Amino acid sequence: MPSKPSLPKGTRDFGPQQMAKRGYIINTIQRVFENYGFAPVETPSMENLSVLTGKYGEEGDQLLFKILNSGDYLSKVNEDEFKSGSKPLTPKISEKGLRYDLTVPFARYVVMNQNDITFPFRRYQIQPVWRADRPQRGRYREFYQCDADIIGTDSGICDLEIVWLVHDVFKSLDLQDFELKFNNRKILLAIAEYIGAPGLDEALCVGIDKLDKVGIDKVLLELQSKGISSTSCEKLKPILTFEGNNQEKVDFLKPLIGSIDFGNQGLNEVDFILDQAGSKTDVDLKLDFDITLARGLSYYTGSIFEVKATTVQMGSITGGGRYDDLTGIFGLPGMSGIGISFGIDRIYDVLDELELFPESTTFGTRVMITNFGEMTLQFAMKLLNTLRGAGISSELYPDEAKMKKQFSYADKKNIQFVAIIGPEEANQQKVTLKQMDTGNQQLLSIQQVIDQIKAADTNGL
Amino acid sequence: MPSKPSLPKGTRDFGPQQMAKRGYIINTIQRVFENYGFAPVETPSMENLSVLTGKYGEEGDQLLFKILNSGDYLSKVNEDEFKSGSKPLTPKISEKGLRYDLTVPFARYVVMNQNDITFPFRRYQIQPVWRADRPQRGRYREFYQCDADIIGTDSGICDLEIVWLVHDVFKSLDLQDFELKFNNRKILLAIAEYIGAPGLDEALCVGIDKLDKVGIDKVLLELQSKGISSTSCEKLKPILTFEGNNQEKVDFLKPLIGSIDFGNQGLNEVDFILDQAGSKTDVDLKLDFDITLARGLSYYTGSIFEVKATTVQMGSITGGGRYDDLTGIFGLPGMSGIGISFGIDRIYDVLDELELFPESTTFGTRVMITNFGEMTLQFAMKLLNTLRGAGISSELYPDEAKMKKQFSYADKKNIQFVAIIGPEEANQQKVTLKQMDTGNQQLLSIQQVIDQIKAADTNGL
Repeated sequence: MPSKPSLPKGTRDFGPQQMAKRGYIINTIQRVFENYGFAPVETPSMENLSVLTGKYGEEGDQLLFKILNSGDYLSKVNEDEFKSGSKPLTPKISEKGLRYDLTVPFARYVVMNQNDITFPFRRYQIQPVWRADRPQRGRYREFYQCDADIIGTDSGICDLEIVWLVHDVFKSLDLQDFELKFNNRKILLAIAEYIGAPGLDEALCVGIDKLDKVGIDKVLLELQSKGISSTSCEKLKPILTFEGNNQEKVDFLKPLIGSIDFGNQGLNEVDFILDQAGSKTDVDLKLDFDITLARGLSYYTGSIFEVKATTVQMGSITGGGRYDDLTGIFGLPGMSGIGISFGIDRIYDVLDELELFPESTTFGTRVMITNFGEMTLQFAMKLLNTLRGAGISSELYPDEAKMKKQFSYADKKNIQFVAIIGPEEANQQKVTLKQMDTGNQQLLSIQQVIDQIKAADTNGL
Repeated sequence: MPSKPSLPKGTRDFGPQQMAKRGYIINTIQRVFENYGFAPVETPSMENLSVLTGKYGEEGDQLLFKILNSGDYLSKVNEDEFKSGSKPLTPKISEKGLRYDLTVPFARYVVMNQNDITFPFRRYQIQPVWRADRPQRGRYREFYQCDADIIGTDSGICDLEIVWLVHDVFKSLDLQDFELKFNNRKILLAIAEYIGAPGLDEALCVGIDKLDKVGIDKVLLELQSKGISSTSCEKLKPILTFEGNNQEKVDFLKPLIGSIDFGNQGLNEVDFILDQAGSKTDVDLKLDFDITLARGLSYYTGSIFEVKATTVQMGSITGGGRYDDLTGIFGLPGMSGIGISFGIDRIYDVLDELELFPESTTFGTRVMITNFGEMTLQFAMKLLNTLRGAGISSELYPDEAKMKKQFSYADKKNIQFVAIIGPEEANQQKVTLKQMDTGNQQLLSIQQVIDQIKAADTNGL
């Protein structure tokens, strides 16, 4: 008895309908990326573990999928090494892992190809990544990332471009209900200094990141447990709870951190974005300077961005920021850059819930030609090849089955036109074209069939 | 000192230029697939090893990339199991593997979704696969497959469609120098019977498959070593060396195997293809019935196909065939189907060698806008956003760098137009548009810039 097959947990198949919707999202984003001058790159699914390990924190290392070495992988392992346990054994029996994100492989790519790349380098990359995470709603073990980065410049114009890019992507996807929060790591650094907790900015970022979920009091408690004094926390509280519009927030922060180097720089960068973003006039700017946005542990050193849907409950659907030194880990220091990552799976769920996929987002055959056996086959094949030659996606039902079965097939596949070719039609070299939604039937020549379908195209049918 | 990063052997990065060429191939094939009514499906990169193991022969099992279980994978392994060696240990520490081809995951998909699929099911799938093979020219450890299958019918019309599909794909890629060899496994089965070696058809197929490489004498020697008698080999030799056109080959085989059930069926299937393929009149048929085509060990049971480039030395670039029972391994018997797989990497190499990529196969920015600092920035950003809004891929040079550096950037990236905005231009709200190949410069309004570039588009620039 053959085994009943199953999928590894956290992974998914995509059928034709899902593929059509995913394709719509990916193609839309890709078009905007290319409009912005980003060029595509792809990297291998596997990377050497020396490239991946230590780049995502300890938790990340544990979430890497590791690939067992080929062949007799135990040949160089002795009993002591076996007994030392899973963790120390791993590097002996596995040297490769699956891509965990697109950023580290991009950094590796830049370093390995630095002599051929024209900087500033604008690349985009749309590929799956893998994480051995516990699967849950909106979280999969294999999912796509969709990244655009500009590396090799620290110009604030690029920060602006990320803001515009986000707006153009969601405008192209017709998603209005989103907010783009942004902040600047330099401001968070300065705040750490201002409250008297210099050097504790990492703890600060990780703590603030939970504000949405646990509230201000629990965040302050956690910060105290991480070594930020209660005096510092008291100075922090009014900052984290300040309410006002973008300009009011800047004005509020200026006297507090404006005299700290980093703070002044950060505020200037925020000012530049707020001043200039509006020079793009064809979108409705949704820009929210949020002092409490931190984006956890990460390599960001300047602007940080996060997009959420406002009317659908669903973590962040896009995020990114500026980094000062992405490639330093691979021996190429001083490469500043900025990047943004669109979460395709979550965007899919949001568009689905808001019913924002265009109706035409579907793949499919336009015409099915009936099969009534040998006598009609010659003419049916002629029609088939002529329609395809005219760019009209067509199928000939492969078997001489009952009329009802053939129509049911066309119906289930949502095929709009059925070309009926019985002996009578074959004889006359004509086609009875049936439009499935209206039930209308007409006896037509092959050329008339083509004209009819192209006319339906033009009318948006 | 950071480590110098490297790529796992047998894997590759694809930069923008390669991506453009690969995209051209993939998009072309995809368009033909959709024109033929195939719908896309994607399956996860990882499958449970229970799905993969035993499906590709013993060699295939060894070439599977296996993924180490997450967490403390040794916790259930005792010392005896460790000492038993790599092979028996593997299933204890790894339950998932990377996709080895697209066919077995497709079979699994069909079985798991059989209640939702409308049969006959026409699906295509374009995804990478992984094999722990020894890397060599044209053979990688990660490579793309590009498959189309029709499952749920044994109609000969589908065999014809595969023939047409192959022709339409290579016509669309403008590759004329190819040959499509085809044969039928039923004929090989009947030949085994005719020469007095019934049941030895597998050995026969594996042996014949090497004919190209080692010649007839060595093949016959190998067949004898596999238990096919010298008398049988003597009867086989004239079959394998027969020369003639397609019809002459059929006529030659008919008296030999026409009275054997399988033989007669196989010859009828070949006849049908030879008779009917010509009903597609818009391609130059390159159809070669080749009695010596066997396609090694595989699940094929009827028609088999193989495409080679005729003027470039490079194994087969496309192959496929009919299978009677692909899903039986997963508990769904009696599903006949037929499929074809295009080898994108090899097609790439062939097109490259024959210089068949269209010149326009490149990604890229159409217009680079110069950056001369703050005074010109407002107008530069206005131009940038207006051009992008008009669908013209544009960049603003992010830094206020020397003119020479900015032009050199545009030059290296093959950007056609540079929009120069100095203080004078900004003042007049005009642009000096320079066409890089001719060196022509004109002072234009933003609207004139758009018109100029769109006109260049129309003229195929």
